[in-house]
Amino acid sequence: MMREKKMQIRDIGEFPLIERLAETLGHAARGAGYGVICGIGDDAAVLQMTPGYRLLATCDMLVEGVHFDWNYFTPQQLGWKALAVNLSDIAAMGARPRWALVSLGLPPDTLLPRVEGVYHGISQLADRFGVTLVGGDTTSSPAGTVINITVLGEAPRSRIAYRSGAREGDWLLVTGELGGSAAGLACFQEGGEPVGEEEVTRAYLTPWPRVREAAVLMNSGLVGALNDISDGLASETAEIASASGLGAVIMEERIPISSSVRRIAGHLGYDPLRWALFGGEDFELLLTIPGGKGAPLQARRLARSLKKATGTPLTIVGRMLPAGEGIKLEKKDGTVQELSERGYNHFRGS
Amino acid sequence: MMREKKMQIRDIGEFPLIERLAETLGHAARGAGYGVICGIGDDAAVLQMTPGYRLLATCDMLVEGVHFDWNYFTPQQLGWKALAVNLSDIAAMGARPRWALVSLGLPPDTLLPRVEGVYHGISQLADRFGVTLVGGDTTSSPAGTVINITVLGEAPRSRIAYRSGAREGDWLLVTGELGGSAAGLACFQEGGEPVGEEEVTRAYLTPWPRVREAAVLMNSGLVGALNDISDGLASETAEIASASGLGAVIMEERIPISSSVRRIAGHLGYDPLRWALFGGEDFELLLTIPGGKGAPLQARRLARSLKKATGTPLTIVGRMLPAGEGIKLEKKDGTVQELSERGYNHFRGS
Repeated sequence: MMREKKMQIRDIGEFPLIERLAETLGHAARGAGYGVICGIGDDAAVLQMTPGYRLLATCDMLVEGVHFDWNYFTPQQLGWKALAVNLSDIAAMGARPRWALVSLGLPPDTLLPRVEGVYHGISQLADRFGVTLVGGDTTSSPAGTVINITVLGEAPRSRIAYRSGAREGDWLLVTGELGGSAAGLACFQEGGEPVGEEEVTRAYLTPWPRVREAAVLMNSGLVGALNDISDGLASETAEIASASGLGAVIMEERIPISSSVRRIAGHLGYDPLRWALFGGEDFELLLTIPGGKGAPLQARRLARSLKKATGTPLTIVGRMLPAGEGIKLEKKDGTVQELSERGYNHFRGS
Repeated sequence: MMREKKMQIRDIGEFPLIERLAETLGHAARGAGYGVICGIGDDAAVLQMTPGYRLLATCDMLVEGVHFDWNYFTPQQLGWKALAVNLSDIAAMGARPRWALVSLGLPPDTLLPRVEGVYHGISQLADRFGVTLVGGDTTSSPAGTVINITVLGEAPRSRIAYRSGAREGDWLLVTGELGGSAAGLACFQEGGEPVGEEEVTRAYLTPWPRVREAAVLMNSGLVGALNDISDGLASETAEIASASGLGAVIMEERIPISSSVRRIAGHLGYDPLRWALFGGEDFELLLTIPGGKGAPLQARRLARSLKKATGTPLTIVGRMLPAGEGIKLEKKDGTVQELSERGYNHFRGS
């Protein structure tokens, strides 16, 4: 009998592997009380939506050598992140994630603990948000690991936020702090050991999707447009502006960047503002609320209730401008620059 | 300006590519009247289910060098097949497919017509069944092409068929004919040109998912268990038997194998029975109906209505046996053999 930890996935068949993984997944795969009529084990999952709700669906594919490097990620961290990016997309619509389907392609010589680790990471994060793994596919992939996760969510029709929901004069706000994920990646790539790097490497490896924050924000009834920051503040602001037929201005001095990120940027010789604007993968929420006389008070109240409910700060970073104004950055000295969209491009590299 | 056909996907950004593809997809991506509130272009699709219906979800990943070979498939054929295997899984639950999400990983030097071809193939098949492409991800994949499709479907709760729905004494029936896909693959692998190979290469490259057949079968109210044949008749029968806590017998002389498949098998020196039992990827439906006195008449009527509605034949191939009988093959000479599960195993190879 082969020792279990030395087993490669080619040594066991596909069916035993799925059964094994269902054990690893524990109750995240069982789904009793989670709207799961039939989960893993038949041709398709059978799910029960909340009556009258709309269905949300999103998917993301992470490819070894493009989106992640096994030198940086443990299997658990990869599983966590692959789910997190999808939960973030559901949160970015203001909706609640409910179910996930995982397709995992692995080199045939992959050791079993790595496979189990990936599913364990998925299951850890899924558990935090009541998300159930209801299906998937596990296959060999000669040239490297590929993971695709589809997340299904739901929301009442009146509680879904689109990118196109911004109006001229709206205020632009962001949850949490920016640049952490780019700083984390830079720490790995530079190989240095700046003080306080755990915070930023965690932001890069195991981002925390703003699902609860989205619920609090949507509850306020104030949200116009909503987006998650997967490609940097500049690119996501441009997306909201473009979808809403508007321009926008971002105020440099308001962009929330943590002291750790500034310190690490200084240490490694990077510009922390570029990380925040173009670094991507922060998975914070970017939203608009109505401008006008009541806006300062509304923004303060919203920030207070978000902080109280989730511990996450909320910061005003800009305003929506008329169409044709483009995307601008108002510098600390009062000068204004045009911002081009220079977020991460998956074909051209970063 | 670069000539369009020579453009590689690395030459254009991710956003222009998705926009371009949305054009290729035509109305399959628009989804007016198809329950699509918001399709491609926001963080997640927003979909409207039929009130009171249950949600079905399935996904499959096809990897270059494991599930397909560019020497055999055109881009259109690959797109078609990647969607077909998922539509077949929804049909295998008796349900109606409605929406699809496509993740496509491609080498950065992939030429644009190949990418567009894949989406064109998906869209061709999607159109036939009123399925709308509502989301996806397009990314680079250094080592080869990977495609993952998730299909979402729906059905009334009383009209969903599970593998576990068989009872002792039920009859086992199959739609269409078996072994065609394996024969098609053999034609490519052997490189010969047997007479009539178009029928079988088509079965391998562009299988026709039995979505309409599933609807007719479910309408009859007779279906107990239902499965699609993706891993050969033996393996799928074993799955129904196992999920239902039963055994089963397959009658060799009843297995529907076309004259083309027999001729090609003879020409290439293969056993057509092995193709049907273990060859896989036929994507026909395997189902049970109640046995007993009325069964012969019911089976004939069901076959007649299926033929009339869809042109597809329906054949009795076996019976469900008590638990502990295992899976048996009754040979033409009346002798009985134990059938082991020897369908395609994705890690061990075929």
